[in-house]
Formats: sequence, C-alpha cells, structure tokens
Amino acid sequence: MRILLVGAGGVGDAIAKIAARRAFYETIVVSDYDPARAERTVAWIRERHGEEVAARFRTAAIDASDPDVVAAVAREHGATHVMNAVEPSFVPTVFAGALAAGADYLDMAMSLSEPHPTDPYAQTGVKLGDDQFAQRGDWEAAGRLALVGMGVEPGLSDVFARYAADHLFSSIDELGTRDGANLVVRDEAGNEIFAPSFSIWTTIEECLNPPVIFEKGTGWRTTEPFSEPEVFDFPEGIGPVECVNVEHEEVLLMPRWLDARRVTFKYGLGAEFIGVLKTLHLLGLDSTTPLRVRSKNGPVEVAPRDVVAAALPDPATIGPRMTGKTCAGVNVTGLGTDGRPREVYLYHVSDNEWTMREYDAQCVVWQTALNPVIALELLATAAWTGTGVLGPEAFDAQPFLDLMARPEAEGGYGQAWGMREAARA
Amino acid sequence: MRILLVGAGGVGDAIAKIAARRAFYETIVVSDYDPARAERTVAWIRERHGEEVAARFRTAAIDASDPDVVAAVAREHGATHVMNAVEPSFVPTVFAGALAAGADYLDMAMSLSEPHPTDPYAQTGVKLGDDQFAQRGDWEAAGRLALVGMGVEPGLSDVFARYAADHLFSSIDELGTRDGANLVVRDEAGNEIFAPSFSIWTTIEECLNPPVIFEKGTGWRTTEPFSEPEVFDFPEGIGPVECVNVEHEEVLLMPRWLDARRVTFKYGLGAEFIGVLKTLHLLGLDSTTPLRVRSKNGPVEVAPRDVVAAALPDPATIGPRMTGKTCAGVNVTGLGTDGRPREVYLYHVSDNEWTMREYDAQCVVWQTALNPVIALELLATAAWTGTGVLGPEAFDAQPFLDLMARPEAEGGYGQAWGMREAARA
Repeated sequence: MRILLVGAGGVGDAIAKIAARRAFYETIVVSDYDPARAERTVAWIRERHGEEVAARFRTAAIDASDPDVVAAVAREHGATHVMNAVEPSFVPTVFAGALAAGADYLDMAMSLSEPHPTDPYAQTGVKLGDDQFAQRGDWEAAGRLALVGMGVEPGLSDVFARYAADHLFSSIDELGTRDGANLVVRDEAGNEIFAPSFSIWTTIEECLNPPVIFEKGTGWRTTEPFSEPEVFDFPEGIGPVECVNVEHEEVLLMPRWLDARRVTFKYGLGAEFIGVLKTLHLLGLDSTTPLRVRSKNGPVEVAPRDVVAAALPDPATIGPRMTGKTCAGVNVTGLGTDGRPREVYLYHVSDNEWTMREYDAQCVVWQTALNPVIALELLATAAWTGTGVLGPEAFDAQPFLDLMARPEAEGGYGQAWGMREAARA
Repeated sequence: MRILLVGAGGVGDAIAKIAARRAFYETIVVSDYDPARAERTVAWIRERHGEEVAARFRTAAIDASDPDVVAAVAREHGATHVMNAVEPSFVPTVFAGALAAGADYLDMAMSLSEPHPTDPYAQTGVKLGDDQFAQRGDWEAAGRLALVGMGVEPGLSDVFARYAADHLFSSIDELGTRDGANLVVRDEAGNEIFAPSFSIWTTIEECLNPPVIFEKGTGWRTTEPFSEPEVFDFPEGIGPVECVNVEHEEVLLMPRWLDARRVTFKYGLGAEFIGVLKTLHLLGLDSTTPLRVRSKNGPVEVAPRDVVAAALPDPATIGPRMTGKTCAGVNVTGLGTDGRPREVYLYHVSDNEWTMREYDAQCVVWQTALNPVIALELLATAAWTGTGVLGPEAFDAQPFLDLMARPEAEGGYGQAWGMREAARA
C-alpha cells in the first residue's frame, strides 16, 4: 500500500504521526499546498521515531483544487490509496483525481450540501455526499473503492452503528450520533477564554446549515438550525452537555446500509456556544459575502465570517493551553436481541493531555485522524474489501473495533472504546 | 441669537427641523463635513415650511476635528451660540473652537472617559466631561456659557432631577436615570430584524466601558459592565425591560449640583441586546484595533467593530421600518416634601410613528434633538442665564418643563411629560 495523504493541516499531520507507529504500508507521501507543512510533519516523525521510520515518508506539493494535479501526484508516487485530509470544499477535486489515477480513496467529510431553494428548513436540496454517490457507477466500473466519511464522526460513529445493528439489537428505533466535550482553553494568565477547538469557519457552516434528519417512510428532511435541544450525559467525567441537531454525514450514510426508524446527529455545542452562533447569525456576521468596511487605507471588502475567524485564537495553536476530553459516539435505542427495549451508548473518548503528550496533536483533531489509519490498515490486510462508493457501515465493524482496542504491545491501537447500557425496564 | 449647528447627521438634522417651527433665533447655520448633508436638511425645511422659514437657515462646510476651523466658521457667520451635534470624539475641538470664537456652546454628550489604568472596574480614570470641567475657569473668565449634556439623556433627565429636588423631595436617596423602549424593526417581508436604533459603534463604546456610579461619601466609582441588572417597568405600554448600569453623563453631572445619596444610570438594553454585546466582547469583535483578515484582494487590516457596524442596517435608514416608543426619565426615591418615603418616575415618551410623520426623524434621534432646541429658546429669552461650564441641572427646571409641555398653539412645544407616583406605604 502506497498512500498519498492530501493535506498536512491538523488532521493530516496527526494521520501521518499515528501511521508512523504502524507497519502496514510501504510509503506515505505527505502532500500540501504549502510543502513546508508536509516537511514539518515528517521532521516530527524523524525526531520522534528515527530515520528508519521517517524513510517510509515522502513529501510533495499539491493543489487539491485541481483534479489533474491530484492525479499527477498520485501517479508520480504510484499511490494505491489517496487519503483526503483537506477542507470539505476540495472533496470533488480530490475524489476525481484519485479515480483518474486508478487509486482507492478515503475521506473524513463528504461533498457539501446546498439548501433547498425555497423551503430550506423543511426539505433537503443537494445533500452531503450526493455528488459522490452520484458517481458510484464510475467507481464500481473501475473496480475501485471510495470509502467516504471515515473520520471519527462520520467514521467511527458509523462503525459503532453497524456493530449495534449486527450484535446488540434485533430492531433499531434511533441511531443518534452524540458528540460532546468538556474542553477548556486558558490564556497565559490561566483565565478561561473563548477558543473553539475546531475551525470556527467550518463550525458556522455546519451549525447554520439546515440540520438533516432521516425518518423511515418520510426519508430525509431538514429543520431549523439548533432544533430539538436535549441535554445528553456524556461518560468519563464529561457530564451533561446541551446538544442540538446539526447537519452531519452520519444521517446521510447510516440509512443507506442500516435499518433504523430514525437517524439523527446532535452536537454538544453547549448553551454558550449555541448562543454565540445564534448571535453571529442574528448580526449577519456568519456571512461569507464581502462587505464594504472602512479602514485606515480606505474602504476594503471583507467577509464577516473571515473577520470572526481572524478575531479568535487559531485552533491549531490552542492544544497546549487546552484541558479536557472529547467524546464521540452513537446512542442506539430499539429492541435488543432478546426482543426487549434496550438503549446503548457506544463511544470513544480522547483526552487532550494524552494526545498532546504522545502526538503533539490536539484531541479533537487526533481523534478524527485515528480512524482512517485503522481503516487503511484493515484495507491493507484485506480484512475490509469493497468497490464503489461505500460508507464505514458497509463493512464489518468487529475487526475495526478489535484492532482499535487491542493493546499496542499486541499489535493493536490501544484505544479502548466504551459501551454504556441504560437501565432496562 | 445666531446658531452654528455643527453636524447634520441624524440629531443635527432633527434639531434644525424642530427649530424650523420656532421663531426665537435670527439664523441657524447648518454645517457638516459633507455640505450635501446640510443642504438636504435645509431642502426638507424649505419643502415642508416654505421659503420664508428656509431663509433663516444657511449651510456651511466644517471640519469638526479642527478647533481653528470651527472658530473661523463661527466668526464668519457671527455665531452667538455653537450647537455641537457631532460624535462625542469631537467634543474637545468644537468646545475649544466655540470659546475661541467668543460664542456660547451646547452639546448633548460630554468629553470621553479613559478607564483607570490598573483597576478599571472599581476606580474611575478620566471621567466623562473631566476635560470640559477642567476648562471651567476659562469659560467663566470669558463670561461665556458652555451648557453641556443638553440632549435627552443627559439633558432632559437632568432637568427632571432638578425638578424633583426643587419641588417633590425633601431628601433624595437615589436619582436613577432609566431609559427603555419597545422599538421593533422589520424587513420588507415584515419579519422582525436585529437593528439597533442607535449607532452600534457608540453603543458598544457606552456599554462596554466601565459603568460609573456616584455614592455620597465614596464619590464616583466604576463596576463591571452590565452590573446590577433590574427589570424596570416603563410607562405608556412599553412595559418591563431589563436594565443594567451603563457609563453615562448624568452620573457625572447630577452630583455637582444636586444632593442625593446615590446617582445611577441604567439602560434598558433588554436581555437579547445585552447577550449580543457580551458575545461581541467575548469574541473580541468589539475591538477597534485592526486585525489582519484575508480578502479577495489579499490580506487587509480592519477593526472588528467597524465590520460589526457595516454588517448591521444603518440606524439612519431604519426609521420607516420601525414601530414603537422610547422612554427617557429619572426614577427618584427619598423622602417627599412631607417627610414621608416617596418614589416618582419623571419621564418623556417619543413615538416613532409620530416623529416619522411630523419630522421624517426616527424617535430616538428626535427625542435627543428636542431638548437642546428648548434650551436654546430659554437662553434666547433669558429665562436661563449663566456663565462657565454648567449642566442642565444648574438651571431652574420649571420654565423648561412648562415650555416643553405647553401646546404649540399657545407657543410651547406640545410635548407632554409624565410623572408616575409609586404607591406610598
């Protein structure tokens, strides 16, 4: 397996660092629009793991917005797999470049949605991943695999859902992905500051897009942003966090392979962050349309959302000042294999102090990066095989979860996952 | 009386329009940095009141940031009074220009404050008006009057406080200015939108500066922004609004002439607006320090607060889409002239539909403009006289309130003011 990793930002960097501890591939080419970023990643690997490990890595410059460039770089390095780790807006071009180069493809976010032109808060328009599933036939005809949505959410959440469907439930009422954290960022003086752990630009995009819900019979439909608030109690000391519906890939992926009455995604933004996003929207500061603004050098045109991003700390820099844990998982309700009502939360928790110490990577970013590396290893060993455009739930969950949980000393990733069983009536 | 009106923005425009119905002056020179704005004001007067009224108005260009220019324009037109209607940042230059020209001076906001360098939320630094009161001797020596803070708040509120002290109370516990409104702005489709009726730039400045409080014995001190929230029940259908401490001139003016145990100013921002201001502060979007932001034409430098202002509707344009009323007044507690506990709210309400119909002016702006015109008329008729730097409470309130309330047909302004007496124990 020769992997072309496209993007050496936070998640791409962590993918390379996680893969550096594994031996399932021949080469990883770390590529970025800015080759210095790719070189920094490999320099870290060299320093931490020595020359022998670093020798399995190459670096390259790439323009992810051009499918021909992506294909050319993939061909040049004989890539068997293209691992997409750039912003979701580049999904179409990296996806096309991989197919053109005859490589398999993985990503962690799917092609973007477009709201319904007249009824955005009730009906779907172009859905997340629609553009990719429309090209399923081309991938099948080429005998190649595109494994889409293979981060943590979507990704691990979909693996959990498949596991629940295969092993824990005889019929499923709701597959509800629930994401929450207790992360706190402090300034030098030790005071808590407002500093989202993920790009505010992307968070605004996700949270202000109409959330999508799947219901058997009706299919997919949308709601107003921040709909159906609920307080979800997250495990391992995180505790209760206010969660709201957010547009997310799981809702588009799970119903294609799994049978459930309802599929939802709720993000534990917390009351403060929901308030911030609502205010930004109320004031039009979420807008990406440039405004004319006065400046010392005369009027300039800037998009308010870019100004908001510039005013906040760069999420890539806050890792050392952050404490706490983030939890990703799926809450499943329905009838257990014994036919009795059952509710189970399957989850994985990532602790920022541990990910910073082990990987110099912030926990949210690291948790995203872990899962595509495990998937690549399952593909390398043919524990997972397939062609066409497939989500994580199209594959058997057992080998994934086994490999993830097995101690590193025994060849696994040493990442325990949890299962919380609700009290049964 | 020949008046040089400096500034033909919202308030300056309304001052000229209100004065156009009065006959106490010889000439008003409407001046602005942009002479087209001054000409628009006079064109409105010509259209509404005819050539004879408009003939009492002149227009001029002025640079309010240059005291020599202000003095030169004042001298050129033989101004006896300079009426300052520009942003508070220009108070020092217009104030100095008026004195240099040998004219009397009025403003509606006082010279700006600077927070205490090390303890801003407990101690005052440079207070509102400090720079002006420091020059009191020069004005006294010149035998000229600077009547400062003569808008609605400060202004009418100070007149009400003086009235209460002279006629309603034997001893005053608190002089509490309380400002609230039920204004609603709608878009073309009739949906309520977020559109502050006053410059968001100035509102941020006022609301995020440390609020100042006066207490007998301790004197002036500051608090954290948004301190001491209370729900105040405003009259004439406005109803209960959440009010918080805000830095305002009344607190600096009233204790200089009136005896009270405590002097406060609370602004009825309402919970939503308080939340918006807190969020802007949390995200650093209230900052006036330019940030480097990406744009189509490469990185540019803009101040986040300027972007917030640019993203919101221009307050000067929302009048026609606004409904509701605004209320300014002072709540006075203490012992009545009979020695028994008493609580009185003295107030004036301005209705946007009426001010738009009569003056093509938004009610908040119009209510501010009304009071300096009444004051000018009292000075013209020598009902009010004085020299030095004086606040409205330095003058007898009775002639002001009488002239304001008297019907227009009988030579007054036809503006009723109200007095709400709390139930007495």
